[in-house]
Amino acid sequence: MQVAIPLYRRFTALDAVGPYTVMAFAPGCTVTFVAAEPGPVTDDRGSLTLQATAGYADLPRPDVVIVPGGAGTFDALHDQALVDWIAEAHAHTRWTTSVCSGSLLLGAAGLLRGTKATTHWAILDMLAQYGAEPVSERVVTQGKIVTAAGVSAGIDMALTLLAGAIDVETAQAVQLAIEYDPQPPFNAGSPKTAPKGLAERTLALLT
Amino acid sequence: MQVAIPLYRRFTALDAVGPYTVMAFAPGCTVTFVAAEPGPVTDDRGSLTLQATAGYADLPRPDVVIVPGGAGTFDALHDQALVDWIAEAHAHTRWTTSVCSGSLLLGAAGLLRGTKATTHWAILDMLAQYGAEPVSERVVTQGKIVTAAGVSAGIDMALTLLAGAIDVETAQAVQLAIEYDPQPPFNAGSPKTAPKGLAERTLALLT
Repeated sequence: MQVAIPLYRRFTALDAVGPYTVMAFAPGCTVTFVAAEPGPVTDDRGSLTLQATAGYADLPRPDVVIVPGGAGTFDALHDQALVDWIAEAHAHTRWTTSVCSGSLLLGAAGLLRGTKATTHWAILDMLAQYGAEPVSERVVTQGKIVTAAGVSAGIDMALTLLAGAIDVETAQAVQLAIEYDPQPPFNAGSPKTAPKGLAERTLALLT
Repeated sequence: MQVAIPLYRRFTALDAVGPYTVMAFAPGCTVTFVAAEPGPVTDDRGSLTLQATAGYADLPRPDVVIVPGGAGTFDALHDQALVDWIAEAHAHTRWTTSVCSGSLLLGAAGLLRGTKATTHWAILDMLAQYGAEPVSERVVTQGKIVTAAGVSAGIDMALTLLAGAIDVETAQAVQLAIEYDPQPPFNAGSPKTAPKGLAERTLALLT
């Protein structure tokens, strides 16, 4: 199974590397970071650089596309080569997916009209601009389009994808391989549970 | 606060990028990937390459060291430059930490004698070779040495570090920024909860 993760300037590292690690641990999965041209791409913190090893033209028909989000998504919405690659790859994928603000790029590619979709809580309403019905859930599956909530939600999404792509036992084996038995030290990971006033403080970290 | 994450051939991507993302979202934190020399370092799946932007000599006194694990740890135990850098940095750190098999490197640097420590469940017993007391917990804090369990446990560890380094509110704001409200689709992330027989299947994925 060929999995492609497009990188663009100022993506969020964990959006890409969470699902990458899950998929790359599964037998028979090959995960490739793609960009307009192969080469280094730097994240939205400015301190992590991942190598894209293929150009869009090298990988036109991956089985799975995982589009990460990040502060750079808003610029990337105007990157026609990226948006076109998503739209064209989608015609042949088994799954077309996103993490965090990556769903806006699925929207820009015209894939979310009339579907439920999710994204980072801070920008959930923006999905409506693309004809989607914003849903506040961790992972939203609509046919072959799967969208995940913010950043870390890509890990949950990728395990769900693996169960569908291969089988539940393989997804569970990968979960055990990455010892994904999360124990967050605080109950602040969702605006539904976070202490009052925390959202305002958090928004300042996201830009 | 200067955070250094050493990279070595065949590290596990999420071990490094989980804590990276948490720390890099915190105000006032600078996270640097270091290696013997600046340059690309490829992970244990062979399909992700991260850029080390500093050599060990460039960053001798970081405030926090986070050592990732991976299939390459066992070779890295013989990398004297890496082991020496860990030992020498530790003399001045506020925290010296590890994720997954990274704790074996803390052990090789002589930091775990007589302390409780943890690592990936599959190799927990190996910690005793370094004079440590292996403990099956998600995150183990012993003074300024903090060790985390396998791969994804680095996210929980980094949030704990942030709370201590800055304050609880900042750690919670980062948790909300990365929407870390985990909802694993299966309850298989620990050998204590995984279905019978899954561990054997999982070990084959780890090499």
